[in-house]
Amino acid sequence: MTTDQNKNLFGGMEGGGTKFVCAVGRGPDAIVDEIRLQTTTPDKTLSQAIAFFQKYNLSAIGLASFGPLDLDPASPTYGSITATPKPGWVGTNVLAAFQFVFKVPLAFELDVNAAAFGEYSWIPENRKLDSLVYFTIGTGIGAGLIINRKITHGLIHPEAGHMRLPHDRKKDPFPGNCPFHGDCFEGMASGPALARRWRRPAEMLPDHHPAWEQEATYIAYALVNVILVLSPKRIVLGGGVMEHQTLFPSIRSKVRGLLNGYLASPVLAGTMEDYIVPPALGRRSGILGALALAKKIA
Amino acid sequence: MTTDQNKNLFGGMEGGGTKFVCAVGRGPDAIVDEIRLQTTTPDKTLSQAIAFFQKYNLSAIGLASFGPLDLDPASPTYGSITATPKPGWVGTNVLAAFQFVFKVPLAFELDVNAAAFGEYSWIPENRKLDSLVYFTIGTGIGAGLIINRKITHGLIHPEAGHMRLPHDRKKDPFPGNCPFHGDCFEGMASGPALARRWRRPAEMLPDHHPAWEQEATYIAYALVNVILVLSPKRIVLGGGVMEHQTLFPSIRSKVRGLLNGYLASPVLAGTMEDYIVPPALGRRSGILGALALAKKIA
Repeated sequence: MTTDQNKNLFGGMEGGGTKFVCAVGRGPDAIVDEIRLQTTTPDKTLSQAIAFFQKYNLSAIGLASFGPLDLDPASPTYGSITATPKPGWVGTNVLAAFQFVFKVPLAFELDVNAAAFGEYSWIPENRKLDSLVYFTIGTGIGAGLIINRKITHGLIHPEAGHMRLPHDRKKDPFPGNCPFHGDCFEGMASGPALARRWRRPAEMLPDHHPAWEQEATYIAYALVNVILVLSPKRIVLGGGVMEHQTLFPSIRSKVRGLLNGYLASPVLAGTMEDYIVPPALGRRSGILGALALAKKIA
Repeated sequence: MTTDQNKNLFGGMEGGGTKFVCAVGRGPDAIVDEIRLQTTTPDKTLSQAIAFFQKYNLSAIGLASFGPLDLDPASPTYGSITATPKPGWVGTNVLAAFQFVFKVPLAFELDVNAAAFGEYSWIPENRKLDSLVYFTIGTGIGAGLIINRKITHGLIHPEAGHMRLPHDRKKDPFPGNCPFHGDCFEGMASGPALARRWRRPAEMLPDHHPAWEQEATYIAYALVNVILVLSPKRIVLGGGVMEHQTLFPSIRSKVRGLLNGYLASPVLAGTMEDYIVPPALGRRSGILGALALAKKIA
């Protein structure tokens, strides 16, 4: 590939706790190259990612990472991972590592914010809306918010996975497994919470298992709270747990029951099949979101 | 007062379930005239308000009303109250009544959004922030959101008073009094909920009464969820119940306990005296917010 053909080529990285995905391209249907790296030490992983991007003449790079992150451009530690149980990664300044090598514009975002932005940017039906919430429900639970067409950070960044929800200990004596909050949303409904409660991995729980009904209940509580606080125009549910597709109708029906007709909107009155949806980009919302971030700042 | 002196004069109206406040002026310290009207029928109340404003040569009028409201400019019922237990007011198009008479720019907003905007617009320390949440905790519970310096509507508008929160029925057997959701935030913690649970008006409960400890707990749960979903830069707590000032230190301490150090922000690590605050405008956030809305569109 010659330099000429590389014109307006973007880089995107999705850094996760177990793997880093790096892609070069122009959009969902125009990926030029892509690699997956195992997440080892920050030095090794980031060097490999940087080496991959150096092969291309990029207009900009979007960097998405697991968090929590310092996303405040005014902060001396802007660009770094602030706290993580992942050994060696606390304080790693992902952005600075790239800034040292690349002289093109660099975007830096939380993984779930990038996923929200990916769903928002690349999907025409989503671009017609001015707000969207993307939840990932998997190893952890997090949410990315698009409000007034922009990613929202606030004081730090949203951590909606740690909301406190109703928990009827008579029906569900599981105390939750969040080391910070016990029975918060993530503590009750993440993949590891399911595995610990039912003593087998979530993907081994059959469709008729009561785990799914209970899981849908906690997710519905969380969604209802987000709808009441933010009133977003669409909610996208991604992540490993949500690959259990039967959760969707069950969650929609429970959300309707919990709202109980209080919010006068035709969107919420119907079956909500266009309101609570799986990611249009499947498992690629994050990496394609990183690419969209690059495109935006290029 | 001559027409000349009336230059750049704004009108503001705060329509509530029991009274309507109408003000004419240029800001918090420059109110020219103000009246309070009893809320009776829509015809009578709105005619009185309109007659009051007609005495002045106004540049713009900001109209804030109790809700839920239709705030979608594209909707045929834009400007109206969509649902309320207040007899006669369902379907009242407040905005249209004013549009029929006034040819100046008119802003139309939910009361609690106006209050949020009032605190944001007139208070210099708030204007330095890009986000703020205003909660009213009184006869009802509602929240107004300023995100990226703008009032946020979303699909309808936030109704954060109806969030579902943890409710330990062993400790607190009160079933809640929300006709839609039973034990939602408003159902457990509004003024009427307090009165019903303790069989006397909230203002007659002494400082040492266990009601206040319990009240602070529910408010803290709600605030923690809003912090986790939105990460706002400041939370203002207004409304009748919050006039019980001892609630503030108790709420701050419980929020700190519930977050349990999870969010790495100096703002949340300290005493939060500058983070969870009473309204700087006291009981006048709403009416002054309506005036600020007028000033913005003039």
